[in-house]
Amino acid sequence: MPSMLFEKTTVIGVGLIGASLALAMRKASLAASITGHGRNEANLQRAKEWSIIDSYELDPAKACEGADLVVLATPVGTFKSLVKGISGSLKPGAVVIDVGSVKGDLVYGIESLMPDMVHYVPCHPIAGSERSGIDTSSADLFEDRLCIITKTENTAVAAFNDVSELWRAIGSRVELLSPEEHDMIFGLVSHLPHLVAYALVNTVADMDPGSIKYAGNGFKDATRIAAGSPDLWRDIAAFNSENLLRFLDILKANIEGLSIYIREGDFKGLEEAFKRASELRKSIES
Amino acid sequence: MPSMLFEKTTVIGVGLIGASLALAMRKASLAASITGHGRNEANLQRAKEWSIIDSYELDPAKACEGADLVVLATPVGTFKSLVKGISGSLKPGAVVIDVGSVKGDLVYGIESLMPDMVHYVPCHPIAGSERSGIDTSSADLFEDRLCIITKTENTAVAAFNDVSELWRAIGSRVELLSPEEHDMIFGLVSHLPHLVAYALVNTVADMDPGSIKYAGNGFKDATRIAAGSPDLWRDIAAFNSENLLRFLDILKANIEGLSIYIREGDFKGLEEAFKRASELRKSIES
Repeated sequence: MPSMLFEKTTVIGVGLIGASLALAMRKASLAASITGHGRNEANLQRAKEWSIIDSYELDPAKACEGADLVVLATPVGTFKSLVKGISGSLKPGAVVIDVGSVKGDLVYGIESLMPDMVHYVPCHPIAGSERSGIDTSSADLFEDRLCIITKTENTAVAAFNDVSELWRAIGSRVELLSPEEHDMIFGLVSHLPHLVAYALVNTVADMDPGSIKYAGNGFKDATRIAAGSPDLWRDIAAFNSENLLRFLDILKANIEGLSIYIREGDFKGLEEAFKRASELRKSIES
Repeated sequence: MPSMLFEKTTVIGVGLIGASLALAMRKASLAASITGHGRNEANLQRAKEWSIIDSYELDPAKACEGADLVVLATPVGTFKSLVKGISGSLKPGAVVIDVGSVKGDLVYGIESLMPDMVHYVPCHPIAGSERSGIDTSSADLFEDRLCIITKTENTAVAAFNDVSELWRAIGSRVELLSPEEHDMIFGLVSHLPHLVAYALVNTVADMDPGSIKYAGNGFKDATRIAAGSPDLWRDIAAFNSENLLRFLDILKANIEGLSIYIREGDFKGLEEAFKRASELRKSIES
């Protein structure tokens, strides 16, 4: 492994993931200089003061000039317009990655916008949190975490290898999925649970918001992700809407099923439904 | 506060809560001897070996002979038949508490079964977990936790005071609610989230159970309570069915609302729904 994979790195969107990746790359000596770009100059200034980035640029195209690696770490809804904005200033041989939670069609859309000689590698580090912003960033965020790379037939082999190496060097395990598989799986185990948590908290809001002060650890755990950024999750829901609509229907059927057991007093049936869920949940670590 | 509130204590159901209460009472010198009762003799034997209890009895009536305090710590569905079984052996002046997660009508049902001169104080320590059994018990389980006492017009003042003192002595804050208020509030912030978690995991089971291995912390947090005991939660759902059916309807409406926003591409509406939930969730600690 080369000691310096990417001479100049540009991070677009210096939040939890972007700032943590900058810190992790710096810690592992994978970048000589890191430039940040974002909409909020005060945040970029703080990121510079905290040595998360070396410098920042308010113009995204300028931020990407001469970059060997560009990291797209803004909400997924901004990726395509960002790529349009920076494509003119990307140098031949540059590698662009995104760290978005949605892949699918978005990957093909981004690929089609990439200039010749620029190599795009779609990534999704499974390291998100309900927290956001540089205050919560950490050089260790990706350690022992999974990073999905959704390689397509258009992904350049050398760029794919370098990017895989990057994630491994900061402690992640790399796994490959197609963009479609990715959105099915993470729609189910990440996007759907977020929608459910939002709906659950809104049910409390509808019925008796004051009762939330009695919440124990069960409620806190179950709804922690409902504290996540509304705009981030709006974008994710928009880009994975087809899968999510299907999953929401199955979820509604499961909830209706529990209602029926309770209404009809079929508590044996209810217990069986609980058991089925309990067994699958216990198959992964707590 | 007397240094020894209850000379002889009997714990019926030596699981997470029962065993932890025994350990906590012992640590705070609130019981001279603790007798255990349960259906599983191997568990009682282990509880004795680990000095959680001093002795055990396989006959519940015998276990309660001479007890100053009897703790009902089995699933709520067993309480009434247990009380019928032990009422003949309870001594005058004995205090009976339960630690069940459901109150409401059950409290009045238990009250009506109590012999004269025996004092029942309905309690709900908010210290449950998806874990169960004595392996996970701890003398500190109730520290800095809330304990709800659902006092009624029939609750004896002296017994209520002693029991409140007991919870405070092991580190809990005591708060009063009526049995009805209790079931409304905890139906909303505890029982409903359990049903939702079971339904969510069953949705994964229906769609693609293998995808669970990709689950990150968000999914793990959101579904941790789905690992809880199916029989315990079956009973709770049965005893709080009226509230739960109402809440499940509101939940379904919220989920349907999210579906409609997504289907119609109203992502501004979706974001507003997320924001509403996010703000209420952020009003309590993470």
